[in-house]
Amino acid sequence: MSEEQSLNDTEDLQERLREVEALLVRHRLVEELVRRQDMPHHERIEGLVHRQNLNELRHKLDAMHPADVAYVLEALPLEDRLVVWDLVKAERDGEILLEVSDAVRETLIDAMERHELVAATESLDTDELADLVPDLPQEVVEDVFQALPPEEQAQLRAAISYPEGTVGALMDFDMVTVREDVTLEVVLRYLRRFDELPEHTDKIFVVDRDERLEGVLTLEDLLIHDPDSDVRAAMKKDVVRFHPEDEAEEAAQAFERYDLVSAPVADAENRVIGRLTLVTVVDFIREASEAEQLANAGLREEEDIFASVWDSVKNRWAWLAVNLVTAFVASRVIGIFETSIERLVALAALMPIVAGIGGNSGNQTVTMIVRAIAMGQVKPDATRRLLKKELGVALINGVLWGGLLGALAWWLYEDISLGLVMTAAMTLNLLLAAFAGVGIPMLRQRLGADPAVGGSVMITALTDSGGFFIFLGLATLFLL
Amino acid sequence: MSEEQSLNDTEDLQERLREVEALLVRHRLVEELVRRQDMPHHERIEGLVHRQNLNELRHKLDAMHPADVAYVLEALPLEDRLVVWDLVKAERDGEILLEVSDAVRETLIDAMERHELVAATESLDTDELADLVPDLPQEVVEDVFQALPPEEQAQLRAAISYPEGTVGALMDFDMVTVREDVTLEVVLRYLRRFDELPEHTDKIFVVDRDERLEGVLTLEDLLIHDPDSDVRAAMKKDVVRFHPEDEAEEAAQAFERYDLVSAPVADAENRVIGRLTLVTVVDFIREASEAEQLANAGLREEEDIFASVWDSVKNRWAWLAVNLVTAFVASRVIGIFETSIERLVALAALMPIVAGIGGNSGNQTVTMIVRAIAMGQVKPDATRRLLKKELGVALINGVLWGGLLGALAWWLYEDISLGLVMTAAMTLNLLLAAFAGVGIPMLRQRLGADPAVGGSVMITALTDSGGFFIFLGLATLFLL
Repeated sequence: MSEEQSLNDTEDLQERLREVEALLVRHRLVEELVRRQDMPHHERIEGLVHRQNLNELRHKLDAMHPADVAYVLEALPLEDRLVVWDLVKAERDGEILLEVSDAVRETLIDAMERHELVAATESLDTDELADLVPDLPQEVVEDVFQALPPEEQAQLRAAISYPEGTVGALMDFDMVTVREDVTLEVVLRYLRRFDELPEHTDKIFVVDRDERLEGVLTLEDLLIHDPDSDVRAAMKKDVVRFHPEDEAEEAAQAFERYDLVSAPVADAENRVIGRLTLVTVVDFIREASEAEQLANAGLREEEDIFASVWDSVKNRWAWLAVNLVTAFVASRVIGIFETSIERLVALAALMPIVAGIGGNSGNQTVTMIVRAIAMGQVKPDATRRLLKKELGVALINGVLWGGLLGALAWWLYEDISLGLVMTAAMTLNLLLAAFAGVGIPMLRQRLGADPAVGGSVMITALTDSGGFFIFLGLATLFLL
Repeated sequence: MSEEQSLNDTEDLQERLREVEALLVRHRLVEELVRRQDMPHHERIEGLVHRQNLNELRHKLDAMHPADVAYVLEALPLEDRLVVWDLVKAERDGEILLEVSDAVRETLIDAMERHELVAATESLDTDELADLVPDLPQEVVEDVFQALPPEEQAQLRAAISYPEGTVGALMDFDMVTVREDVTLEVVLRYLRRFDELPEHTDKIFVVDRDERLEGVLTLEDLLIHDPDSDVRAAMKKDVVRFHPEDEAEEAAQAFERYDLVSAPVADAENRVIGRLTLVTVVDFIREASEAEQLANAGLREEEDIFASVWDSVKNRWAWLAVNLVTAFVASRVIGIFETSIERLVALAALMPIVAGIGGNSGNQTVTMIVRAIAMGQVKPDATRRLLKKELGVALINGVLWGGLLGALAWWLYEDISLGLVMTAAMTLNLLLAAFAGVGIPMLRQRLGADPAVGGSVMITALTDSGGFFIFLGLATLFLL
């Protein structure tokens, strides 16, 4: 991080954004003025004011941290965003592209020429390149590859080859390694030859002559031990290490469990091939949790808030289609009982309560079970115990709340048997919800699928159709 | 982290858990055997086997990292959990209590005597104590306070005084400070006098004689610069610093934006009073995102998966009560139109579709807006633009999906005007959902409330009641 760039807290950041917007407004005013009064003698004045505005803006942007520029770009509508993007120094393009969200990155890359894109990648490390490559046009990727030295070509190829969600896709290749038979004094002198250390270096990897990991020397141990002692004496041998094919989620849990800041990544022969840092892991955790939130609401991906209406429709349609199908099925279940409803219209008013409460209760169960599975606390053989507990909760809720609603129905429609059917249907639907709430995620886990995906949709579909069927079915049997 | 304790990846951890469980099963078998055959001459054999089992278990636990012991405790039912807890060395109790979830911590503290609890806190730092204090019985807290030296008493009092969700509640008090006019060689010698540095020290704070923050000296700069140079020459003056009353969420965003590992916390006079580390911030991020997930499903807090049925009922009842009220309101809206439904029973089958799709679409909008607000990308004056976009999306979806469903209704009931009412009602309810999906979170933000809380409940309540009203209302006007 260069020292002239000022760092901002969130309020300052909002302030920076307002300043940029104010300059953009001035810039657009001038442009508008010129467009209207298309006269030669205005040109010079306009040119001056125009350039002055843009210069001030460029100056502001230069003084901002790449992450802050990214923030400003994300908060601006497309047109303004591209004006600002044009003003950013070309050598900073790469790091800023890494910071913006996927949706905004797409709009920026679309606006860049091939040679600009290639230039933007020149300032990036191999692991950063690997993050960007999937979003770049094919011909740019080829140019980028050509420009790399052979060793980095191999690294980039390796980094791209690891699937998303693995440690390999998150690791970087910058690290400092030393041998165990040198003294700390030698290590200290060796480090002084660096202009800078790899970002977030809290430990140095100790390797043998075949690059096999022997241990780690933390900077703390390097600093507090006598410089005359050996690396061997100061290093730690019990090291949390990862393999590139490990799941990133498990690595993230290990980082949290052991409070790690960085950890070596080793291949099957225990040769150090990369490094995982907490900063990368935090990004991964945040992205994974965001992706989950979006998926829960049926959004395919994060939306650029200035995306076109049409892009938004596409982002959301799949989920609505699924819901349409489940809603249609529930509607057909009601259709079966139309004659019952004709004879006792109160059923139509009461049935959504049974379905709705079942859905909510089922979603509580699913959330609880999915969380417990994610924490690794639920083994497949726990199904029976969890099922027993959830069915117990459902029974109590059914009798309590179902009883209350039954009483309300009785009072409203002056029909005690309607009230009893209501209570029975609520209880049965809550039991169904508990059963499915435990069963669906556990089954998905046993089948090797992600237990978090789609549980909510399936539960709601089941408790809607099930709730209508149970309530209208019981009513048809006992009331008509 | 002591060196004998082995570190485990998730699979190893499962393996450890299975070993502990196997030992517990053996332990319980022996106990059962003794209980049944209550004979004196068995006692000695039992005692031997019993002790052997427990010794093996104790040995296993001693070799595990506190976080791993916590994992095992969380995965065991209450009875087994307390057997294991009894076997953990007393001096490790404190750090393990910090690692377990709130629900499990409660069960462990309940099982401990006052003097055991006081002893458990002795190994903890002030900031860790502050995390534990809210869960301890009042008389234990008093004993703990008595046992602290005056300086730490003041720190603990300060740490407790900051409300949850502020930087003050997350900061610790361990840090290394130096003056700017000494050489790096002096700093290096000073550090060698430490037995260990505060955890996750990646930078040393440079202060003047009044403890006012002048800059930071990263370990990297300390290591790569010539030892004869001054701290002043090697330090960075532009420092991200926090104040204890800053919001933790904003600090977390700054940590991510600037890739920080630690940062100083300063008071209003710029005196350094504490330190915030990425490891603490990560815990905070994870907990905040989990709390949000739980709140979304209407769970008050994380449940111990072995909690009693009754505890679970209490954890979930508030949400169900809210849903009961909204479902009842929706049911009364239908009640208004009972005569319409009696005359055209198809309405009863079709109305849940209109309500359901509206709710799903509204939830998509809320999720999008809440995310954008959380990222700081939405200023209150953006309401109009966002509203325009969301209404556009709703209109397209209404015409498309509403049209499809209208056609289906026409085909099913051979009534073209029913189909048209269906399409119109879908479109209007989607517009209502878009309006509320933008309006509710933006309004909450403007009123200074958390935009994420309760948006989903309110939207669903609105689109349910609204959907029924719109559809049945239009049908009553145009079809009957």
